[in-house]
Amino acid sequence: MKSAPGFLLAAKRCEIHGLEQLALTAELVGRIGRLVHLLQKERGASNIYLASGGTRFAEQRERIVAECAAAEAEVREHFGRFDTEAAPLAGGARLFSRIAWVLHGLDALPALRERIAARAFEPARATAAYSELIGGLLAVVFEAADTAGDPAVTRALVALFNFMQGKELAGQERATGAAAFGSGRAGAEAQQRLLHLIEAQERCFQVFAGFAEVPVLARWRAAQGAAVVAELERLRRVLCTAPPDGAVDADLSDAWFDCCTRRLDEMREMEDMLAAGLQQLCERKIAEARADLQDHALRVDALRGAPAPLAVFFERTPEPAGGAQVLAADGLGPQLGRSVLDMLQAQARRLQAMSDELNTVRGALDERKLIERAKGLLMARRGLTEDQAYKLLRQTAMNQNRRLVEVAEATLALADFLPPGQ
Amino acid sequence: MKSAPGFLLAAKRCEIHGLEQLALTAELVGRIGRLVHLLQKERGASNIYLASGGTRFAEQRERIVAECAAAEAEVREHFGRFDTEAAPLAGGARLFSRIAWVLHGLDALPALRERIAARAFEPARATAAYSELIGGLLAVVFEAADTAGDPAVTRALVALFNFMQGKELAGQERATGAAAFGSGRAGAEAQQRLLHLIEAQERCFQVFAGFAEVPVLARWRAAQGAAVVAELERLRRVLCTAPPDGAVDADLSDAWFDCCTRRLDEMREMEDMLAAGLQQLCERKIAEARADLQDHALRVDALRGAPAPLAVFFERTPEPAGGAQVLAADGLGPQLGRSVLDMLQAQARRLQAMSDELNTVRGALDERKLIERAKGLLMARRGLTEDQAYKLLRQTAMNQNRRLVEVAEATLALADFLPPGQ
Repeated sequence: MKSAPGFLLAAKRCEIHGLEQLALTAELVGRIGRLVHLLQKERGASNIYLASGGTRFAEQRERIVAECAAAEAEVREHFGRFDTEAAPLAGGARLFSRIAWVLHGLDALPALRERIAARAFEPARATAAYSELIGGLLAVVFEAADTAGDPAVTRALVALFNFMQGKELAGQERATGAAAFGSGRAGAEAQQRLLHLIEAQERCFQVFAGFAEVPVLARWRAAQGAAVVAELERLRRVLCTAPPDGAVDADLSDAWFDCCTRRLDEMREMEDMLAAGLQQLCERKIAEARADLQDHALRVDALRGAPAPLAVFFERTPEPAGGAQVLAADGLGPQLGRSVLDMLQAQARRLQAMSDELNTVRGALDERKLIERAKGLLMARRGLTEDQAYKLLRQTAMNQNRRLVEVAEATLALADFLPPGQ
Repeated sequence: MKSAPGFLLAAKRCEIHGLEQLALTAELVGRIGRLVHLLQKERGASNIYLASGGTRFAEQRERIVAECAAAEAEVREHFGRFDTEAAPLAGGARLFSRIAWVLHGLDALPALRERIAARAFEPARATAAYSELIGGLLAVVFEAADTAGDPAVTRALVALFNFMQGKELAGQERATGAAAFGSGRAGAEAQQRLLHLIEAQERCFQVFAGFAEVPVLARWRAAQGAAVVAELERLRRVLCTAPPDGAVDADLSDAWFDCCTRRLDEMREMEDMLAAGLQQLCERKIAEARADLQDHALRVDALRGAPAPLAVFFERTPEPAGGAQVLAADGLGPQLGRSVLDMLQAQARRLQAMSDELNTVRGALDERKLIERAKGLLMARRGLTEDQAYKLLRQTAMNQNRRLVEVAEATLALADFLPPGQ
């Protein structure tokens, strides 16, 4: 029959196990970042290749595809490490479904590339296909953030996830702009899309800034002043202020691709900083928890064979809660029972504080979930595109002078009143 | 190297494992309910025994203590079933700490009983001591509700937890009234406490009613019309309208104890209904999930050795999301890849719907957490009792015409401005 101290130690071991899971995830996130980065490059190159009727970026594209293979193998290898047979991990159902989705997409990649090589379809389609696969990879990172049990780690994951999301939107911007310059035409639709992508990026980087550590943040702020950003803004202006016929100088496509790529490469380095920081954080937490377990185990050993704590449990200083009252101490080793009690109380306080903090950090994730759900609802029920759905929400928020997340909540509350999907 | 279907099946297995955990918890909750019921009885009997200077309920008390032993053994046995060495379960850290806390309290129970037998302290202290132990047992049920991953099960656990909580408050009311009648005196403090307990009970039963299934609810509504409730209200009036000197007829203590006990016994039966319903729900869910797994496994087998799905992944009907676009189907078994894709999409939709519903149900738990945290904060920082803290929150809510939970949130937001604890 297990004892109170036995369960106290078991609780600690659960914490450690959870942290070890997170450390593994941190490594996976790093690898996903590398693969996503290359898929973003491939998407951009494919766009110029297709938009230019195969006259540009043919061999750049092949070079990137080759680089992708190694990064893909790394991610697949790491997926293979999950012990899917034995101990199912917390949130495993959702994480594993996301992984299944990604693997299915990776399996389809060769066929996608063949079609692109054969110029069998348009840039927009290529962008959408790559974007969906990348979205699946980012969803794996989101699941990780959503199931993390440690507030500090969750905080780091929220920062990292939003940064990756922002970087992906920057990548979609590169692809969209590349297609426009590549074809020498930036139509109204492309311009709308670019404006949406620019704004959505900023939203992500705001959340990132709210959760990132000082050093990364400093580097991020510094990067915003770099020449490459000025150049980017100049080219953005060229695209967004194109004449009605949308004509833009096709010779700018290399400049556009290079400056977007330099920006993305910088982001990629910061992503590595964030991933490395996450890894170190997990390792530090694990070390702390192990030391705690050690200490508890020693104190528990000291109690072995000691008499039951008797009324010590009810002998604490009175709490205003009208909880346990003080009784006269019985002779039998109160300090022994006391020491278990101290551990129990310390543990309870710590776990309480952790779950309180966790709830706070989770707020950022929940807001995102609400906005995504509201967007999805509008897309399904009103047949809007993602951009349109987001614009509708944002516009409503402005008109009613409410926060975006409040409007999202209201939208979901009205779900039953919206007409069914087409 | 694991495949997409491999992870699809692994996700299902995770779901099943989670449900099996819940089924185990459902059984534990039933046992905890039985033990709590007897501890409540013991608390009430001890109160009359102490309040009457040992002249009443001496042997009733001993009989109840004897009954308790069996129920305690059952709970301890079930605690022992948790595999604390291997696969740490989701939320294990918090659950196991709660269990450690309870075991520590159960170990202290014999000493508590000796003191009561020796009439070594007052009824209020006995009530507080039993109440804290019972509170620890209920906290185990709350953890279970808080970590459940299935919305329907969470819903059932929220109903059950609030019912148990309300029953416990009814038990504290019995004890408080028993002490008053036993001593022939219902002072202002006892009256205040009674009023608080009555109101807090109603709050719990409201939440219960919001989540319970129709049959239990019908029985609950019927019970409210029973003669025993009328009798209870009459005796409540006697206590709460006692003259300034608080004199009440000591001979009413048996009547009070009996009618409270009949009410609690009725609740106990409903608790069993709820626990049984929870058990059946878990079993049904497990059966469904197993059938799903079976079906998926068969479909996956059918694909073994089949060619990779190729571009099928990118061949879905277009989504307004501007997500994957339709490509011309390649010759190679699209329907094969399609069938994996169907499973993936169905799974994703189901998990999404589940986590959306879960967030909704969780609301009830989160509100409770917020109110408890705000109460705790006021108790610590302002040295209030639980009753006073709750009254302050409720009064503020009334004055500002806001919901209790909103006031709790506001209080927590102001935490740093409140003076530190004494």
